[in-house]
Amino acid sequence: MAKNKLTPQSEDFSAWYNEIVYRADLADLSPVRGSMVIKPYGFALWENIQRKLDDMFKATGHENLYFPLLIPMHFFEREAHHVEGFSPELAVVTHAGGKELEEPLAIRPTSETIIGEMYSKWVQSYRDLPLLYNQWANVLRWEMRTRPFLRTTEFLWQEGHTAHANADEAVAETTQMVNIYTEFAEDFGALPVVTGEKTVGERFAGAQVTYTIEAMMRDTKALQSGTSHYMGTNFAEAFNISFNDENNEQAFAHTTSWGVSTRFIGALIMGHGDDKGLVMPPRLAPTQVVIIPIYRRDDPDTKATIETEVNKLAADLREDGLRVRIDAREGMSPGFKFNEWEQKGVPLRLELGPKDLEQGVVVMSNRLKEGKQQLSLESASAQVSAQLKAFHTDLFERAKTFRDEHSLNVDDYEVFKEKIEGNWLYVNHCGEPECENAIQDDTKSTPRCIPFEGPASDGPCVRCGKKSAYERRVIFAKAY
Amino acid sequence: MAKNKLTPQSEDFSAWYNEIVYRADLADLSPVRGSMVIKPYGFALWENIQRKLDDMFKATGHENLYFPLLIPMHFFEREAHHVEGFSPELAVVTHAGGKELEEPLAIRPTSETIIGEMYSKWVQSYRDLPLLYNQWANVLRWEMRTRPFLRTTEFLWQEGHTAHANADEAVAETTQMVNIYTEFAEDFGALPVVTGEKTVGERFAGAQVTYTIEAMMRDTKALQSGTSHYMGTNFAEAFNISFNDENNEQAFAHTTSWGVSTRFIGALIMGHGDDKGLVMPPRLAPTQVVIIPIYRRDDPDTKATIETEVNKLAADLREDGLRVRIDAREGMSPGFKFNEWEQKGVPLRLELGPKDLEQGVVVMSNRLKEGKQQLSLESASAQVSAQLKAFHTDLFERAKTFRDEHSLNVDDYEVFKEKIEGNWLYVNHCGEPECENAIQDDTKSTPRCIPFEGPASDGPCVRCGKKSAYERRVIFAKAY
Repeated sequence: MAKNKLTPQSEDFSAWYNEIVYRADLADLSPVRGSMVIKPYGFALWENIQRKLDDMFKATGHENLYFPLLIPMHFFEREAHHVEGFSPELAVVTHAGGKELEEPLAIRPTSETIIGEMYSKWVQSYRDLPLLYNQWANVLRWEMRTRPFLRTTEFLWQEGHTAHANADEAVAETTQMVNIYTEFAEDFGALPVVTGEKTVGERFAGAQVTYTIEAMMRDTKALQSGTSHYMGTNFAEAFNISFNDENNEQAFAHTTSWGVSTRFIGALIMGHGDDKGLVMPPRLAPTQVVIIPIYRRDDPDTKATIETEVNKLAADLREDGLRVRIDAREGMSPGFKFNEWEQKGVPLRLELGPKDLEQGVVVMSNRLKEGKQQLSLESASAQVSAQLKAFHTDLFERAKTFRDEHSLNVDDYEVFKEKIEGNWLYVNHCGEPECENAIQDDTKSTPRCIPFEGPASDGPCVRCGKKSAYERRVIFAKAY
Repeated sequence: MAKNKLTPQSEDFSAWYNEIVYRADLADLSPVRGSMVIKPYGFALWENIQRKLDDMFKATGHENLYFPLLIPMHFFEREAHHVEGFSPELAVVTHAGGKELEEPLAIRPTSETIIGEMYSKWVQSYRDLPLLYNQWANVLRWEMRTRPFLRTTEFLWQEGHTAHANADEAVAETTQMVNIYTEFAEDFGALPVVTGEKTVGERFAGAQVTYTIEAMMRDTKALQSGTSHYMGTNFAEAFNISFNDENNEQAFAHTTSWGVSTRFIGALIMGHGDDKGLVMPPRLAPTQVVIIPIYRRDDPDTKATIETEVNKLAADLREDGLRVRIDAREGMSPGFKFNEWEQKGVPLRLELGPKDLEQGVVVMSNRLKEGKQQLSLESASAQVSAQLKAFHTDLFERAKTFRDEHSLNVDDYEVFKEKIEGNWLYVNHCGEPECENAIQDDTKSTPRCIPFEGPASDGPCVRCGKKSAYERRVIFAKAY
């Protein structure tokens, strides 16, 4: 039995995570180091994430396209910060078609370079701008320590890449996209995030500004869940993305990039899960409602009646746009099924047996609450929809309360060192990379972001006492 | 001006193809040999293909998942036919993370091997079967001669991989999927196809049965546009996908795989395009209706009125579920725009100018017809929907008539050699690979399929005179 019990989060959060990923059938280990197989339940979650984000991208004027997987090695050398950031992680194709290649090709770790090369062809005049493009793709970074969804050598993501005529437009785009990520995380993932800017030391390789959404996991660590970068003219200069402006003068484009990856699944697992397993946010859940028919195996008449009613109920719910699954598997007890769907985090479970049918009710269990509730069969569909709506709010509030209970202002470095375990600390900070490194050496924490919102504060740096570089407190936390 | 004219198909079909792919903005050359960039117009077409196929897969009980890009080299050696078929085309990662790998990893040319490895873990009992899974992914085959969409080193596709308890179920799945491809090609792509079985010599590497859909291009060549394979127990034996059957005896699973790729875009281009450019099948067209507002630049009042009306019209059409684009670009004449959208194959074009507005009409042009037609503005939406429906049928019939005019029965090898240029030949055939090779050497044609349907015929082989191996005539044609 020991093997069958999920390790409690409080006992070993990391073990809990690794167990639940496999138990809930989100992913499986693969024979390739650091790569995972995303199983149907995990992939359906990713498809829902994709669908919602993609709608939001398109509603703001972006189009999808597709760039090659393989990138000539010399492309990486054109932008100095970029090569420094990515070359240690590249996977390199040296042979193809039975021959050694003249120039090795890297599997994309991100596509700025090849996109820069193409944009330089596509942009000639200010009339060609802006380019508002996104690609859904797999990328590869040869990480040393990997964990499913959080850090895998291969992962899936979307990478938006835009080019603009001037800095203002590009910065507005960068801001718009991080705001879309915020809205997505909160309104669909039920995951409260702090949206803000990265300090200089934490920026993307080659960016002038990096915006981020940071979510608190149930072990209080931070998880960067989406980023949006303003590149200035760095990549435009490196790849010659230049154009004739309205005054017929040659200018460099201002570019941005922004991405959300399968890592977001890790954020949902660790941001919402509990000792019973996953808790799926209803608006992204592969299955929002599972229906379990209850009958005795030796009573085929009842079985037929219950099946008919269950199918009717499911059809009603589906008509209301809900994602419903009937679990009619044979040879498993209802209790076994209850546990499995609880572990998989399905928000609502409905049971229907002969006694319920007699009373004209269906029994509902809510993944966030103890006990069961009876719903009238007749109006079940409307009630279930309302329950899912409330579930979203409850889940969001639960996560927000948890985060708020583990967030505090700190002005003293000794207190910082004591409180950093188990909290996000809001501190005044000088912004200097050396100081950040010292804090990281002392406490294993890093600056997560300078929040967009919050009270003004510019006191002396919590560690070195130098003047604060920002208008408000910076969040330091341990992070994934 | 010479540079601006599209090469006519009759003059040089291959030049026509290469020109239209870039002119219509479907794709662009990339700096990586044999890889292309799929541009937004081409990618939107692919997204529509994906959406429809994916719906059809899910409606028949399939789920999506995702397997790793990189496959250990020794996996390919486990299935003899497979390694022979694919090893010459592999792209191989030998270095990663700054070090040489202990075992090189191949970029997937197709995923049977890694999926076989995983399925052997997932299948233990007959209760675990069937596995009905599909993945949307990029794959890489190091081809020597590449052409955009038709043959690129990297391409996008879906690969379905299923495992079943017995041959009957697996063959039924193989048949079901090729029938789905048929329905998709005809009902969504407006592309008539011949559905049938490949001869032994033309089977997929490792398959026992390969079904195919074959479409005739406007140069009369055949394009294999989707395939479905029954693997027997070949891969199950190679990867040990075995299970305890209902009698508690160990058995090997029967597997299938089936795929459609970005090659299908090539089929649409060459199956429907004409000397004016692309013709998009309405049910897959990125833009079904383009609206071009007509006004004089020096008349801002009219411009404002027309814009309002055009937006209203577009909103009406969109409400009816149509994909509509307003082309309000400045600094381009209506004529220029007409040409551009004609070249891009948008099925219907609407123009609205002040005179039309006065008369309460909008002017419609149909990509398949000469001349223009007036529609009442009030009922435009309903008429446009009806026109698109008719457009689909007309396009399908045009392609079918063309194919039928270029298909004939042949029983004499001298006639075969004469007629193979410009036709699909239906012939009796012994089915022997040596005979097929001889025919290919003589005529550059190959057996496309043994059609599922057609009159019975088992006369002597058109070339060697031996007994026909099949119940009906085999199609020979030149092919892409």
